[in-house]
Amino acid sequence: MPATGQFDTDTAVARMSSGVYSATLSDRWNVPGGTPNGGYSLGVTLRALAHAMGELGLPDPLVVSAFFLRRASNGAAEVRTEIARVGQRTATGEARLLRDGQELVRAVATFTDLGQPRGRTLELGHAPELPPPDACIDARGGRSMPGVTLVERIEIRCAQPPGWLVGRPSGDPSATFWMRFADGRDADTLSLASLVDACTPVVMELGARGSSTLELTVHVRARPAPGWLACRVGTRHVIAGYHEEDFEIWDSRGQLVAQARQLALLPPTDA
Amino acid sequence: MPATGQFDTDTAVARMSSGVYSATLSDRWNVPGGTPNGGYSLGVTLRALAHAMGELGLPDPLVVSAFFLRRASNGAAEVRTEIARVGQRTATGEARLLRDGQELVRAVATFTDLGQPRGRTLELGHAPELPPPDACIDARGGRSMPGVTLVERIEIRCAQPPGWLVGRPSGDPSATFWMRFADGRDADTLSLASLVDACTPVVMELGARGSSTLELTVHVRARPAPGWLACRVGTRHVIAGYHEEDFEIWDSRGQLVAQARQLALLPPTDA
Repeated sequence: MPATGQFDTDTAVARMSSGVYSATLSDRWNVPGGTPNGGYSLGVTLRALAHAMGELGLPDPLVVSAFFLRRASNGAAEVRTEIARVGQRTATGEARLLRDGQELVRAVATFTDLGQPRGRTLELGHAPELPPPDACIDARGGRSMPGVTLVERIEIRCAQPPGWLVGRPSGDPSATFWMRFADGRDADTLSLASLVDACTPVVMELGARGSSTLELTVHVRARPAPGWLACRVGTRHVIAGYHEEDFEIWDSRGQLVAQARQLALLPPTDA
Repeated sequence: MPATGQFDTDTAVARMSSGVYSATLSDRWNVPGGTPNGGYSLGVTLRALAHAMGELGLPDPLVVSAFFLRRASNGAAEVRTEIARVGQRTATGEARLLRDGQELVRAVATFTDLGQPRGRTLELGHAPELPPPDACIDARGGRSMPGVTLVERIEIRCAQPPGWLVGRPSGDPSATFWMRFADGRDADTLSLASLVDACTPVVMELGARGSSTLELTVHVRARPAPGWLACRVGTRHVIAGYHEEDFEIWDSRGQLVAQARQLALLPPTDA
């Protein structure tokens, strides 16, 4: 039985007509500024596309590219989906998240069945080396951030508190930490595509006050084992305010389950 | 005056009606199997979208995501474009490449004007360390590959011949080399999105006989200076045949100009 939790409730969609779904952008996944987290908005968008893909026997997103077109807000929304190609092993479709007639997110995604892995495996990377979750500290450190409800949904544990959080940005835009849904729901392939965008931008360690995602690509590489997820995030190229953020998620077996990269822009005040 | 060459001739499109362009998939950019290179097909696709974006004063692709849906073939094609959002600094659109009514490539791209860089820059990476191009060898080593016309369009120089080419795959799926158009045309931002997919898959160093691109994301980070381009390519995670390939292009000033990642699949015979 698949685990369910707040993420499932808040990404639920209802089919209105062929390829069209109604949804609600909940205020339980908000980031600073009172806007829903991009990863969460993508989760709602993908949920609609997964309905059609599930009927094809292809339940797992394999590669997802999402363009964030406009700032989202909480409330009623709609997802319009279209299937571009159905093959034997994969199918590709597109989903557009709209609110008040304005397109917020455009996602193209290829789905497959990751329950049937076949073919060669060679892992040259390695999972982040972290103390066990119980020996780590809660990255929030007991702080509450009014309106930033995302921090109540996602639990993050790290060996040391992030520099930016204690007023001393480290100058090193990289981090490793544990992550899980705060309600104990285990991650699945659909939620991995949201979790890669669920953390504070690592450019905060450069003194930035935030970052806006333009595009996010996620490769989902395996169904995650239950338990904590080990994450590695880093930025290496900030050019004229634009920067990539790379994000890896490794599961409790030590297997890479998601690899993501986004292109994001520093706010003008950090320019 | 922008440099022009065979790439421009072979990616040219003609406007047929609002948002619809005719094109030809030339046989001058073919890879083994008699199919046009994916990067070249993407170049044709982007060329159509760039028409509309150029009219908006946003000539440079900033981030491109392309899904390769079906094997392409040479001949008459069509590109259907749509603008999703126009903002002050960027605009996002979609383009679909079709042949015989079948969709081959679906690309979503955000364009901007990279001639007006502003905002913070911090480069933590570095260009590949290579001997000067004149001290490097031609990666083809004088070999000709009948039908593989791509190798006549793209010149590649490296310090040592790739292991796979001399029958001894190195086991290390990474490489650095110089690249340029063989006709001397300098790269621009549009062609960078093609050049990141113009080389032999680096998994050949693992003994693979090829690799099929499912999705390719390109971040174009700056307008390239004239001259040779220094490239770094690598794969680290092969899981059940699926693997990423990361590709960086640095220009002759030593500046990162493109960063790309693709998800690709080994052929079944390599499984």
